[in-house]
Amino acid sequence: MKALVIGATGSIGGVVAATLETRGHQVIRASRSGDERVDVTDPSSIRELFARIGRLDAVVVAVGSVPFRPLGDLSRDDYLAAFTGKTLAQLDVVREALPVVSDGGSITLTSGVLAREPVATGAAAAMANGALESFVLTAAAEAPRGIRINAVSPDVLANSPGYFDSFPGHRPVTDEEVGRAYVRAVEGVITGRVLAV
Amino acid sequence: MKALVIGATGSIGGVVAATLETRGHQVIRASRSGDERVDVTDPSSIRELFARIGRLDAVVVAVGSVPFRPLGDLSRDDYLAAFTGKTLAQLDVVREALPVVSDGGSITLTSGVLAREPVATGAAAAMANGALESFVLTAAAEAPRGIRINAVSPDVLANSPGYFDSFPGHRPVTDEEVGRAYVRAVEGVITGRVLAV
Ligand SMILES: NC(=O)c1ccc[n+]([C@@H]2O[C@H](COP(=O)([O-])OP(=O)(O)OC[C@H]3O[C@@H](n4cnc5c(N)ncnc54)[C@H](OP(=O)(O)O)[C@@H]3O)[C@@H](O)[C@H]2O)c1
Ligand SMILES: NC(=O)c1ccc[n+]([C@@H]2O[C@H](COP(=O)([O-])OP(=O)(O)OC[C@H]3O[C@@H](n4cnc5c(N)ncnc54)[C@H](OP(=O)(O)O)[C@@H]3O)[C@@H](O)[C@H]2O)c1
Repeated sequence: MKALVIGATGSIGGVVAATLETRGHQVIRASRSGDERVDVTDPSSIRELFARIGRLDAVVVAVGSVPFRPLGDLSRDDYLAAFTGKTLAQLDVVREALPVVSDGGSITLTSGVLAREPVATGAAAAMANGALESFVLTAAAEAPRGIRINAVSPDVLANSPGYFDSFPGHRPVTDEEVGRAYVRAVEGVITGRVLAV
Repeated sequence: MKALVIGATGSIGGVVAATLETRGHQVIRASRSGDERVDVTDPSSIRELFARIGRLDAVVVAVGSVPFRPLGDLSRDDYLAAFTGKTLAQLDVVREALPVVSDGGSITLTSGVLAREPVATGAAAAMANGALESFVLTAAAEAPRGIRINAVSPDVLANSPGYFDSFPGHRPVTDEEVGRAYVRAVEGVITGRVLAV
């Protein structure tokens, strides 16, 4: 398969790109600084990326930044930033990807554990993740040509120790576990699923 | 209790206001055209509403408009409109309500079945609902002074027959069932819960 990984220089995207390559797929690595340049906060940049690449069998999006602040400090602008930086960026990728993904191909988004478990300062992140997870249910049901749409929703990654203090008692997930979830979404037949890891 | 219902002239808000009054609570009915005027898309209007009313035991928000379009027709602006019109409007109410709600009082938001079940043209609505439902988990955990934050997530209402064709096979929920869910959130002790009706 020919797979595009957006956010391929990151903690999750790096694991996904390496895992898909190990499994014999051709992987195109995109990010603001990657082999293929894209800024997912700019819809025209996303459009140009897909125009350059052409037909794809799988698109994985592993990007998204959100402000972390105590509930009482979260402003309207913080919620807007979380929405545009994580949710809308991924929805924009879905819209631009649909015309170029092959029949039965897949689009896999990345949400996160905060959609289902609270941690301090995580209300805006929770909101952005929950938005993505409910979106994939309907988007998958309406997607054309058998294109499958799923989300992977990881707990804190073992390879991201900087976040451990914010997730007390959470079991960090290994690269292998994370990679497997994206492989299920890319190589499997599932659609409209949120894979909690 | 002294309860504010925002959206009290609507299908859900009307049921909630009537139910809470029947149970002996003092209900303040707000909307763009109600006894107390507020436009939830304008944060300063929300701030003025709470400044006028002062201390409250319960705030219920039953507002939110979202565009319904097939997945392929949903634009970036549609997603933004769904987010600002349904999600952000309710988050703005939470922020302005927190300082005026009494200790152990409650804030109850309204999402909807699309957070968990797909219907055609509902991807933006699903997203807006999912955002609210994940938000309440973390917001409740971080709320000050024992203030409780929940969401009620109704299926299509029996009193809204105009929507029946869009929800084939769904069992419309009666006013009594809807009212009960909000009573659980307002009079009960639960917090961080999404009450599916
Ligand atoms: N790490 C975790 O423990 C964890 C757990 C659960 C969920 N998540 C979620 O997974 C997503 C990715 O997290 P991560 O930890 O892998 O992040 P990361 O290590 O910071 O990597 C982010 C990736 O996205 C790229 N990127 C950032 N902004 C971009 C933009 N505007 N346009 C295009 N590419 C952009 C970055 O590359 P460039 O700088 O080159 O653009 C990088 O490749 C986030 O939404 C995060 O919330 C992470
Ligand atoms: N009806 C259903 O079957 C159903 C099922 C599940 C979920 N929901 C959700 O529940 C929410 C309410 O639905 P509904 O059917 O009750 O709606 P509705 O009958 O259209 O009522 C909306 C209420 O909100 C008020 N309102 C609208 N825009 C406002 C604004 N900018 N500022 C302040 N108030 C505003 C309206 O009064 P004014 O015009 O006077 O402002 C009215 O009181 C929506 O988010 C909907 O998605 C509805």
